[in-house]
Amino acid sequence: MADEADVFDVIVIGAGPVGETAAGRAVRGGLTAAVIEERLAGGECAYYACIPSKALLRPVGLAGEVRRLPGLELRGPIDTGAVTARRDEAVSHFDDAGQVQWIERVPATFFRGRGRLAGPLAVEVAGPDAGVRALRARQAVVIATGSDPLIPDVPGLHEARPWTNREATSVREVPRRLVVIGGGVVGCEMAQALHALGSHETTMLVRGERLISRTEPFAGDFLVRSFREAGIDVRFGRTAVCVERPVPGGPATVDIDDGSRIEADEILVATGRRINVCDIGLETIDLKPNGPIEVDASMRATGVPEGWLYAIGDANGRNLLTHMGKYQARVCGDVIAARAQGRPDDLPGMRDTADDQGAPQVIFTDPQVCTVGRTEVQARAAGFAVRIVEYDMGEVEGAYLQAEGYPGRAKAVVDEDRRVLLGVTFVGPAVVDLLHSATVAVAAEVPLDRLWHAVPSFPTVSEIWLKLLEEYGL
Amino acid sequence: MADEADVFDVIVIGAGPVGETAAGRAVRGGLTAAVIEERLAGGECAYYACIPSKALLRPVGLAGEVRRLPGLELRGPIDTGAVTARRDEAVSHFDDAGQVQWIERVPATFFRGRGRLAGPLAVEVAGPDAGVRALRARQAVVIATGSDPLIPDVPGLHEARPWTNREATSVREVPRRLVVIGGGVVGCEMAQALHALGSHETTMLVRGERLISRTEPFAGDFLVRSFREAGIDVRFGRTAVCVERPVPGGPATVDIDDGSRIEADEILVATGRRINVCDIGLETIDLKPNGPIEVDASMRATGVPEGWLYAIGDANGRNLLTHMGKYQARVCGDVIAARAQGRPDDLPGMRDTADDQGAPQVIFTDPQVCTVGRTEVQARAAGFAVRIVEYDMGEVEGAYLQAEGYPGRAKAVVDEDRRVLLGVTFVGPAVVDLLHSATVAVAAEVPLDRLWHAVPSFPTVSEIWLKLLEEYGL
Repeated sequence: MADEADVFDVIVIGAGPVGETAAGRAVRGGLTAAVIEERLAGGECAYYACIPSKALLRPVGLAGEVRRLPGLELRGPIDTGAVTARRDEAVSHFDDAGQVQWIERVPATFFRGRGRLAGPLAVEVAGPDAGVRALRARQAVVIATGSDPLIPDVPGLHEARPWTNREATSVREVPRRLVVIGGGVVGCEMAQALHALGSHETTMLVRGERLISRTEPFAGDFLVRSFREAGIDVRFGRTAVCVERPVPGGPATVDIDDGSRIEADEILVATGRRINVCDIGLETIDLKPNGPIEVDASMRATGVPEGWLYAIGDANGRNLLTHMGKYQARVCGDVIAARAQGRPDDLPGMRDTADDQGAPQVIFTDPQVCTVGRTEVQARAAGFAVRIVEYDMGEVEGAYLQAEGYPGRAKAVVDEDRRVLLGVTFVGPAVVDLLHSATVAVAAEVPLDRLWHAVPSFPTVSEIWLKLLEEYGL
Repeated sequence: MADEADVFDVIVIGAGPVGETAAGRAVRGGLTAAVIEERLAGGECAYYACIPSKALLRPVGLAGEVRRLPGLELRGPIDTGAVTARRDEAVSHFDDAGQVQWIERVPATFFRGRGRLAGPLAVEVAGPDAGVRALRARQAVVIATGSDPLIPDVPGLHEARPWTNREATSVREVPRRLVVIGGGVVGCEMAQALHALGSHETTMLVRGERLISRTEPFAGDFLVRSFREAGIDVRFGRTAVCVERPVPGGPATVDIDDGSRIEADEILVATGRRINVCDIGLETIDLKPNGPIEVDASMRATGVPEGWLYAIGDANGRNLLTHMGKYQARVCGDVIAARAQGRPDDLPGMRDTADDQGAPQVIFTDPQVCTVGRTEVQARAAGFAVRIVEYDMGEVEGAYLQAEGYPGRAKAVVDEDRRVLLGVTFVGPAVVDLLHSATVAVAAEVPLDRLWHAVPSFPTVSEIWLKLLEEYGL
């Protein structure tokens, strides 16, 4: 039995942005909360994913904008040292004191250590000093343990100690020769960033026939064109079959399934994520620790008697995106507080509707790829009466004013029955904040006839909206 | 009486983007149309306003983005020659052949000359050869004559042949010493552009106490800070009282109401617009030619028997913005076609709702100022139950990743009765396309509880939406 001091209304395992947000909302709702983190408070996102990768990518994208605009010229290549210095600042020099302080100011109690379930509403924290502390939750336990990079089972690969997103985003010495295994979001973002920062010989091995294959096909086409123009060697339908690295830290060789071999200074593996639920004590409450924790729209785990367990972020497998995890955390923290206090638990903000509609996502490459909602394939598979509208973003006057030879395209997936948007994809330089207009339109199911009165300003890239609606026939 | 060849369903006077759009929509609706233009087809916007000004401003804004990002450095100042060369390309070297071709492909009939009303449904075109051609409209005449810059009544100013937006946007030799009279949108945009392109001694004389005084007060504060940091001499509460330019094309002196005097190579006047309705024959149909033509929500002029006259764009005075004029033109062209053919004329796209809600507008300075809907002052004056939410955009993680010392702020005006947004202002570098999210939210009156589910992507500047909604209390 835990001491009274170790009893909290809510215990959150995992202090990434998702866990932090859940604790913050629960406390705002009147509860007490504890947050447990084994590694750095702030999570993968703050130190080894979103934040540092965008710190590395921003100058690459901006340099692309300059290159496409007559009248400006850069003095030389990107100053890699200045960029990694700013990255270090962006990740607080890998020091989580500020994050811990944020948690304590919530106020919530922070425990450093590995959190594991130990039966219903019970959590044990194995601290860095090897001691174990027993905590008890009155209302709920929230799993926000995130995910880790997955290393595929290629002979010699594991032993070669390849880079993952962690090493790539925290890069100091940029390897001159880089092999990237994987053509998804992380592979694309990091291949482009490292190539621009000094990996002049970058090779991408992509198992399928397309980059970022879950997005609309043209998006990957834009990226491969951009990558090849920059000198990245993108190889489709290829996988590594054997890796050797005789001297740790020395050069490695990668044998490819077409019989060729590449020598590289580093290998970056970007082939997906493993959700961190294997060793968090799920077996103590009779859940199988072999996949995402299934939750309902209030983020409550299904199949747990009394309903005290919640899972948010990567742990529930809905969408492995920080902003969606934070969104789920807001739902979760609010709903736990409401249930604890016998308040209505079904207010509009207490159900996750956005994950089902299709999460917004930005791929911070040059050009950027921004999507929300369903792709054409997904919408058709879901049985909607789909109509597609596409337009070349470079044809918009505002795009011409942004850039010479603006590379971009937009696609809208319309539900013809309701005349609302099911999904939108924008590809183009610096379209990242244009996405939110589509996110609002999709989330709020704004009828096209109403969108017609949302007049885009002239002359901006946003006039793509006018073009799409005109193409549709409005 | 006009020849049969000179009879059209619709006659549009003015071939700016607004007139062109109205003709295009009317023809798409099944009517025949003529378009009359005295100057260049494409209008002020295409040659002397929106398009060239943005071609001049884009490198200024982008240079600002580079300056605020460690790791990139520009080789030198902006290459003014390259920028004006691209501006020339953007304005088709002041040749409207492409625009005329566009009109003819609508298909509509283009008349070069000055169009004037000559009684109900009658229009005369005074061509460049001094001949007058009589046209007759079966259904409607549309006034889309735009506006001209206004030169205030300052002794010597008119004689000094000051620049207006026309000369400023078509600049070839950038004057070293520039005086800008006016602190509105044109004054701010052109002062910043010309200063960055070579007007190293730029002085702004602003009658009031603020720049862009119709926007939220903090927007002007951001601009004046940016301008002064760049070295522009902004003087508030000051007007020119006397101008002298003894030698045409030579230096001018400007006497200011505080007794001081400035010598300048050019004077740019940006003190507003005069709507072009004075000499278009309104008196032949008993309308007074002394102000905007009053129209209803279908763009039909009120007080004209039989309702055959329409006015769109600057001519109706609703909002002197190209995109709003084009929007009105879509309403107008559609409604004329519907009425001509006895179809329903009250479909959702056939009424202007956006002008009343508050037009979106972008000021393309650095930082940019983007607004839609009502300001706090306007909303309170209109009697709404107003609540204000503000947030420092530089505090958003996505903004930090964009720029060191990101200068920006956001303000939302909420209607507490309906919990919808009445207006939004964003100030920041490159926020231009973020605006459309607010435009959709305002135009569609999306409830805040629904906006909560429009999840901004992490880490982007769009997360300002999350911050604003959290500040509101969601």
